[in-house]
Amino acid sequence: MLSTMNTLRIGLAGTGTVGGGVWSHLQSNFDVLRCRTGVDIKIVRVATRDPKSIERLGIPTSIVSDDWHALVNDPEVAVIVELMGGTTHAYQLIKAALEAGKHVVTANKALLSKYGEELFALAAKKERQLLFEASVAGGIPIIKSLREGLIANRIVALYGIINGTCNYILSNMSEKGIDYAEALADAKAKGYAEADESLDVDGHDSAHKAAILAAIAYGFWVPEGQLATEGIRQVTKVDIQFARKLGYEIKLLAVIKSDDKSGVEVRVHPTLIPQKNVLASVSGVFNAVFVRGDVVGDTLFYGRGAGADATASAVLGDIAELALGLHAPRKCRAVGSDALYPKLKALEEIISRFYVRLNVADRPGVLAKIASVFASYEIGISSVIQPEVQAGESVPLIIMVHDASEKRFADALAEIARLDVVKDTPVSLRVEDFE
Amino acid sequence: MLSTMNTLRIGLAGTGTVGGGVWSHLQSNFDVLRCRTGVDIKIVRVATRDPKSIERLGIPTSIVSDDWHALVNDPEVAVIVELMGGTTHAYQLIKAALEAGKHVVTANKALLSKYGEELFALAAKKERQLLFEASVAGGIPIIKSLREGLIANRIVALYGIINGTCNYILSNMSEKGIDYAEALADAKAKGYAEADESLDVDGHDSAHKAAILAAIAYGFWVPEGQLATEGIRQVTKVDIQFARKLGYEIKLLAVIKSDDKSGVEVRVHPTLIPQKNVLASVSGVFNAVFVRGDVVGDTLFYGRGAGADATASAVLGDIAELALGLHAPRKCRAVGSDALYPKLKALEEIISRFYVRLNVADRPGVLAKIASVFASYEIGISSVIQPEVQAGESVPLIIMVHDASEKRFADALAEIARLDVVKDTPVSLRVEDFE
Repeated sequence: MLSTMNTLRIGLAGTGTVGGGVWSHLQSNFDVLRCRTGVDIKIVRVATRDPKSIERLGIPTSIVSDDWHALVNDPEVAVIVELMGGTTHAYQLIKAALEAGKHVVTANKALLSKYGEELFALAAKKERQLLFEASVAGGIPIIKSLREGLIANRIVALYGIINGTCNYILSNMSEKGIDYAEALADAKAKGYAEADESLDVDGHDSAHKAAILAAIAYGFWVPEGQLATEGIRQVTKVDIQFARKLGYEIKLLAVIKSDDKSGVEVRVHPTLIPQKNVLASVSGVFNAVFVRGDVVGDTLFYGRGAGADATASAVLGDIAELALGLHAPRKCRAVGSDALYPKLKALEEIISRFYVRLNVADRPGVLAKIASVFASYEIGISSVIQPEVQAGESVPLIIMVHDASEKRFADALAEIARLDVVKDTPVSLRVEDFE
Repeated sequence: MLSTMNTLRIGLAGTGTVGGGVWSHLQSNFDVLRCRTGVDIKIVRVATRDPKSIERLGIPTSIVSDDWHALVNDPEVAVIVELMGGTTHAYQLIKAALEAGKHVVTANKALLSKYGEELFALAAKKERQLLFEASVAGGIPIIKSLREGLIANRIVALYGIINGTCNYILSNMSEKGIDYAEALADAKAKGYAEADESLDVDGHDSAHKAAILAAIAYGFWVPEGQLATEGIRQVTKVDIQFARKLGYEIKLLAVIKSDDKSGVEVRVHPTLIPQKNVLASVSGVFNAVFVRGDVVGDTLFYGRGAGADATASAVLGDIAELALGLHAPRKCRAVGSDALYPKLKALEEIISRFYVRLNVADRPGVLAKIASVFASYEIGISSVIQPEVQAGESVPLIIMVHDASEKRFADALAEIARLDVVKDTPVSLRVEDFE
């Protein structure tokens, strides 16, 4: 109705960090989204009060307005993406957009935790979508996973490390043994904390997100001010050290659970987490949400919780969902029909690092011989271990080599296997460094 | 068309571990699914050749047949859930079901990796859904996350620990220092490995799943036999120990990546993973898929990869997706309108364990005094640390207490704070043990 057959027209409100990321990634991945949704997704109107961002992003000035009403009043705009932040203009915009029959995508957790009940009721009444994947845990598709993938589950408990600033500060205090003030200063210097850090370190941002997760899991909105919230200012390095002695890490954790039918707990506070739990290994600016469902058991969703890129991924995912909803049956969504990519690479061309274990004769010059074979194939050695062992005919020799193709490595190893100083068949394993 | 207004009628093929789990959880969570989808989901016909399972599950014999044609031939059945396994009857069933205009849900990775290209093309032609969330990584909604949540991303790389049997064996070898044969025997004794372990330990099961993930990420099916596969039989405890010395764990890893436009790598083999990477901490029967997208950056999805319950969660999620597709606008899906759950629990009623740090006078009897206050509130102490410190006026005392309500704990702590042996304000933090 509001979009012609194969185009979904978007009005973008806000061109800050996230808005800029959405603009840029929509340009760079336009073809990806076209192929996967069968729809051309175009930002046809932009509202912003930051002219510099317009220039930096290369947005045509002809589509820019400094008034968000321009988005709502444009009948061609089918979807409004609200990335202005704040709870006054953003509230008015979303309300007006839904009233005008437009779908809305937002990343605004403060707004949803305050006005979610009203806005979702309005969306339902107007039969429009109000999508908000980006509002919790950035690029992690936790909203979709909870609402769709885990839909058959009663949620037993949900634990979230959902504020990257706090997690960065606490991780740093734990790893470096520094105190809160030093860790906060470092976070500010690196751009992970705002000049006014209160929203993050006092737990309010986590509380906004916890309210949204609780609404999805348990179906009601925790009224503002009733969500028990403690921040991390009072956590000391001494407590972190004692916690570690006891086998725990301290994290700012959102806890949402219902053990029985007596009620639902929703709270945010610094929390001791057993070191053996996967959540304890979530460090730095990363976020993670641990979900325990009555059917699925324990699951965990991990990724970047903030930033232009990760958040844009979530916003664009919501936009794509609306694009997919335009057509039935969905175009170009059959598995294995995506023309974007080249075909399979042959195994011989694949590049890996390798671990090699050899049994070698226990005499001088052996390593030199082996190293010279690797060198003749232009394969570099990154580390060597020669364990001390009882004297004997042969000893183990462990070598890690730098990147090599399967073919070149296999040829080198075959030559090494033929050396008279090498006993038994060499053992080799591939290494992935995730770099 | 094939289902009346508010009911989705299912034909279930197979009543083994996963089929049984789907039957049971659909009964127990029928109301959850009704509320969230607005549809009554009912299994109206079952095909199985295992009469004992029918009795055990309490399935009415009137709906059971030993021939899967009974599902396809029933015009009331709108969705066929294929959980028979194997690649002959299952193939015939899915083909016949799609031809008959029914949607299909399957967990069959061997089948999809072999016939996926043909079956998805058929589904597209017949405009029916072929859903398969349960085919990879059990209850983890990785298929939906890749196809929908991360839809705006070009997939840079995808790394999967997607066989619980192998991960259990390798974790055990690493943690206990035992060899492969012993770890395999233990996995068989615990029911984590089949009598014939070949499908798992030789990497074939992981390869089937890798083919499916690759098809989603890169849009083409790796032809059978062209997916480079190595199993874990040759991994020794010696290699695991040397890898650990070098800062790595050894995991059976599916690697799917495309660094450039030259080609896509798809392979399964034992792999050294840096201990600091989250994937290295995935132990036991758990699965995890690490996804690097060009927009979202690094994400990880973790959970149980097999078993009746986790797999049923994924199958029921697919069924619910079909139920949601029956109606527009979706009923009962607005956030914060779910009548299943009670309201917020007051903070005072919430039960937690607590960590307490006190500064206390350095003299005998202090611990006794404090312990007796906790005892008078019926709060048990689980551990105490009294660090050795230089002699001085006051010393730290760390106490972990067992479960207590916020109210009772706060009252006890207030009384302790008033003791003359307690200097400064006590520090307290909550503890979550994820039990």
